[in-house]
Amino acid sequence: MNVMHTVILFQVCLGAEAEDKFHMVEVEGLTYDGKTTKVPLAVLKPSVLPSVSHLGGFEITPPVTFRLQSGSGPVYISGQHFISDDEDDDEYVFILFIYLFI
Amino acid sequence: MNVMHTVILFQVCLGAEAEDKFHMVEVEGLTYDGKTTKVPLAVLKPSVLPSVSHLGGFEITPPVTFRLQSGSGPVYISGQHFISDDEDDDEYVFILFIYLFI
Amino acid sequence: MNVMHTVILFQVCLGAEAEDKFHMVEVEGLTYDGKTTKVPLAVLKPSVLPSVSHLGGFEITPPVTFRLQSGSGPVYISGQHFISDDEDDDEYVFILFIYLFI
Amino acid sequence: MNVMHTVILFQVCLGAEAEDKFHMVEVEGLTYDGKTTKVPLAVLKPSVLPSVSHLGGFEITPPVTFRLQSGSGPVYISGQHFISDDEDDDEYVFILFIYLFI
Amino acid sequence: MNVMHTVILFQVCLGAEAEDKFHMVEVEGLTYDGKTTKVPLAVLKPSVLPSVSHLGGFEITPPVTFRLQSGSGPVYISGQHFISDDEDDDEYVFILFIYLFI
Repeated sequence: MNVMHTVILFQVCLGAEAEDKFHMVEVEGLTYDGKTTKVPLAVLKPSVLPSVSHLGGFEITPPVTFRLQSGSGPVYISGQHFISDDEDDDEYVFILFIYLFI
Repeated sequence: MNVMHTVILFQVCLGAEAEDKFHMVEVEGLTYDGKTTKVPLAVLKPSVLPSVSHLGGFEITPPVTFRLQSGSGPVYISGQHFISDDEDDDEYVFILFIYLFI
Repeated sequence: MNVMHTVILFQVCLGAEAEDKFHMVEVEGLTYDGKTTKVPLAVLKPSVLPSVSHLGGFEITPPVTFRLQSGSGPVYISGQHFISDDEDDDEYVFILFIYLFI
Repeated sequence: MNVMHTVILFQVCLGAEAEDKFHMVEVEGLTYDGKTTKVPLAVLKPSVLPSVSHLGGFEITPPVTFRLQSGSGPVYISGQHFISDDEDDDEYVFILFIYLFI
Repeated sequence: MNVMHTVILFQVCLGAEAEDKFHMVEVEGLTYDGKTTKVPLAVLKPSVLPSVSHLGGFEITPPVTFRLQSGSGPVYISGQHFISDDEDDDEYVFILFIYLFI
């Protein structure tokens, strides 16, 4: 069995009440050779860039963690999570909605 | 019968007369397992980011509601709504045009 | 005969001499059920957002009118217009270049 | 023989030493019916928008000229140029790298 | 054997501690005819544009070097690196994560 996970991220948005400083969101996950890596997704600041869209799609191997590397949020991450399976032809789609706040 | 709805959002624009504060637009709809969820679409502010484009496409299960989570608008959302049907091969396309104002 | 028109918009740019206020561009055209509708394309302001790119593609039924809903321009809209025909397999492509000024 | 040229533009970036005024880049080329046309690509200003990405792809008929319509640069344009040929199945790809400075 | 490398870049982000000046990232690599070339990827500045997303995909011939052409970083570059091989049908995918700091 070969299950593939693909994530398409749509938006990373700051909440209207976020402090006016830099909020960096990073993803922590496994690379294809099994190592843990951290990838920054976006750097947002209310007075400069409150919202980033069309972040593109990438394949992931769960588990994946989204984290605030700097700033305190709130940050909203949205997208879609596709799960496809070699054995059957079905593809499952879930709305991805993550809320980060420290 | 298996009807699929796909929404491609093009733009979220603030009206020229919008107040200079943060306006957050969110979508409320059903996830694939039937739960209600809210996903923020964009955070806009006239003096910082008055317009966001290419928000990407996502599959939805109607009904879907677009709402101002903060701010008073006006906010214009535009896109296309594709409806495809397993039984026939036709695909129907509608211009999506939503106006939010509190 | 079934002729399909598709428009891919690349850029909406303000001219360097545009006034520092909001310029909103809207499209007026027919929806798929024959009604006239107006969809905002972008809101630009020289000191905030002078240029928007990758506005995405949409299917249109001519005639379509691009208009300044607020502001005085000049605004430059560019893209490609694809015309395909069911009877032959050819697809015709035209550079779309629109100049708005009040 | 039917040779097709497609250009995918990735980025238009201002050099770090560019003056703080508007720099507008335009493309001059032939339309599909053989007329010369000018299409603005992006309007950049160091203190507002120093870099624009994902400008989309378009088909061109050489020759094509990129030009500064206003401002003095330096402006860096990058992308890929695909050349495909009906007679053989090969596609040739070149990195496109243009430097504009007045 | 014909191995093809494709890079899809997702994000270029400034670190929250970056100085408030312009940071220009460039790629140095080989063109398809074997010459070395430099292509600017993005120009970022904390108070203007701290993060750029959806930089698009391009084919590369290794080795490729990412470099700060101006500014001191830190800059985080993320994406995916696809390696496909003519002899077998497999495609290998690696998370691309680069950290630039002077």
